[in-house]
Amino acid sequence: MSDEKLAYAIQHDGWGELVLSRPARRNALIGPMVVKLREALASLLAQNSRVILLRGDGGSFCSGLDVDAFNTTPPQPWVKDFQDNWMNFHLDLYRCPATIVCALERHAINGGASMALGSDLLIAGQGAFLMVGEAAQGAPAPMNLAWLKLRASETMIAQLMLSARRFHGPELHRLGLALDVVPDVDVLSHAQKLSETLAKFPGSGLVSTKYAMRLLGPAGDGEDWFRRAKEKPANVGDWTPQRQRVGST
Amino acid sequence: MSDEKLAYAIQHDGWGELVLSRPARRNALIGPMVVKLREALASLLAQNSRVILLRGDGGSFCSGLDVDAFNTTPPQPWVKDFQDNWMNFHLDLYRCPATIVCALERHAINGGASMALGSDLLIAGQGAFLMVGEAAQGAPAPMNLAWLKLRASETMIAQLMLSARRFHGPELHRLGLALDVVPDVDVLSHAQKLSETLAKFPGSGLVSTKYAMRLLGPAGDGEDWFRRAKEKPANVGDWTPQRQRVGST
Amino acid sequence: MSDEKLAYAIQHDGWGELVLSRPARRNALIGPMVVKLREALASLLAQNSRVILLRGDGGSFCSGLDVDAFNTTPPQPWVKDFQDNWMNFHLDLYRCPATIVCALERHAINGGASMALGSDLLIAGQGAFLMVGEAAQGAPAPMNLAWLKLRASETMIAQLMLSARRFHGPELHRLGLALDVVPDVDVLSHAQKLSETLAKFPGSGLVSTKYAMRLLGPAGDGEDWFRRAKEKPANVGDWTPQRQRVGST
Repeated sequence: MSDEKLAYAIQHDGWGELVLSRPARRNALIGPMVVKLREALASLLAQNSRVILLRGDGGSFCSGLDVDAFNTTPPQPWVKDFQDNWMNFHLDLYRCPATIVCALERHAINGGASMALGSDLLIAGQGAFLMVGEAAQGAPAPMNLAWLKLRASETMIAQLMLSARRFHGPELHRLGLALDVVPDVDVLSHAQKLSETLAKFPGSGLVSTKYAMRLLGPAGDGEDWFRRAKEKPANVGDWTPQRQRVGST
Repeated sequence: MSDEKLAYAIQHDGWGELVLSRPARRNALIGPMVVKLREALASLLAQNSRVILLRGDGGSFCSGLDVDAFNTTPPQPWVKDFQDNWMNFHLDLYRCPATIVCALERHAINGGASMALGSDLLIAGQGAFLMVGEAAQGAPAPMNLAWLKLRASETMIAQLMLSARRFHGPELHRLGLALDVVPDVDVLSHAQKLSETLAKFPGSGLVSTKYAMRLLGPAGDGEDWFRRAKEKPANVGDWTPQRQRVGST
Repeated sequence: MSDEKLAYAIQHDGWGELVLSRPARRNALIGPMVVKLREALASLLAQNSRVILLRGDGGSFCSGLDVDAFNTTPPQPWVKDFQDNWMNFHLDLYRCPATIVCALERHAINGGASMALGSDLLIAGQGAFLMVGEAAQGAPAPMNLAWLKLRASETMIAQLMLSARRFHGPELHRLGLALDVVPDVDVLSHAQKLSETLAKFPGSGLVSTKYAMRLLGPAGDGEDWFRRAKEKPANVGDWTPQRQRVGST
């Protein structure tokens, strides 16, 4: 695992790529990777990226939390801070002044789905799928819920989260969650071209739009919104990540 | 009318069916039926149903208020309390911790539509339709409005409620209001199978999702939300249910 | 320009048409036209129009602000008050008790799009398009944003406004933004027939629905909502309308 990049940034002219990079694990998430994602996003913004392309290395977007890594004995040192760290990355995305494009190759599962749903413009492969599968594992999915409630509707929460199903590209398009659905081999190039096009827009239209979009509510600075999405009924105990099946298409 | 069941519950392993049962009237609503619906829902929840399948007996979901029964001379004793009773049933649905699946067979008209729209996951027949037809009769439709504003968007309120049209299964699917559209003869079995599948999900994912979904607003405990949905402009008088045409496909 | 009607009202039985009329400029917006639109809308409401059909003369709906007219030397006297005037017209639409139907012929661009998105029921031609293209010109689009945030969702803001693309009739239908998509030659007659049908609905169903729809929030009397939609990040300067390309299909 030591030679994995985990995550990195590629700066282009006015836009940048934010890349999940654990391809051997289909970019499954671990604590140090989220730290690197936050750093890479900050570096892109510091270099004035107006558009951020969020994508995964190796042909998949993200297969969710790496449950094996969460369940070692003894536990990895980053496990105890993971939930805070993870929410802070979502707050970074929520507050990001740049337009976020997501290239959904192959799959966006659970935690991976939440990053796709937190992006502004989703490009999905025809055979790719998004799955908020936590409910089928008995788990909550607060970041997915926070984004769907903010950006879509309760009907979308119900359909994606309570059914825990796979929603493939064409379904995401029908539901208005994906901007474009393209052949699987074209997802990345299509998303890159879109990002480049948007980065060439003059002036401040994109940033002003995102600013006012969030200003009109209901999530304010995001802190309370994302935190409350984690609340649970009084009779429900804490949940710990456990082994999950990583889907394949 | 005396041998009608009105409504009843069927408890399964971890899930239950909440059944409207006035099949000779296509499950048109009357006061005592709403009382029974509330009792049956409470009994299912008391037996730990994690998923509730809401459906009608006899091949139709619900044809709305039974206008004949609302207009007898003298009036039936339950008429005066109906509006409060009806809103309280919607508050029960709003606060229901279980996932609610609705089997939309044949039609869900007016009051029937409001129960379908208040459900989490709607399964519709290809030839079935949902119609919020009150506006065409000069009437408000506060429960439909409350649900659409909470769960969908103003565009959906406008399209469903101001046009007063029939929206068939495929249209409900396009609009993201129905999870699945299936052949008419398969609606019930499909909805039952889905309910059974969801009831087998371990742990508390479903209940936590519904909890946080509602916690994030905007309707709070629902009381004020559903009550305000009934408010009308100062120059508009009260409305009394009158004879309506029950559509057929 | 002196013999242009700019805008006018046609009163029918219970409904009326609100017509943009600068056909030689594809109904591009100038200050005096917005003044006339406000007057014509008020006159229709004063004559008890329950349904308003918003449309353009000459086969196009509206091509946005008339940038040439905004950039004369010396500036036209109405330029300095335009933004207030324009927002006030949107407040009129927001507060309009009548149901607003919009006939989207040929195109609804930028400012034109905001009127289409502020209407309750949108009828679009198969080859017609709606484009919120301001971001591609470096400009904000606060009225479009205010309506999409109020009536649709953040996903719609992102897709329509950040991509700055043309969305043709069938796409507007898929996204739930258009009620009907019809052949281009039928848009006007279809929208007129719909308006006439709705105007015949008895009683107060339509007006009560719109009243409660807006009462449930989040925009209150609209004043603060539309004003805040114009706010921008601290580091972004003012924007002045400049020459834009008017699309054609």
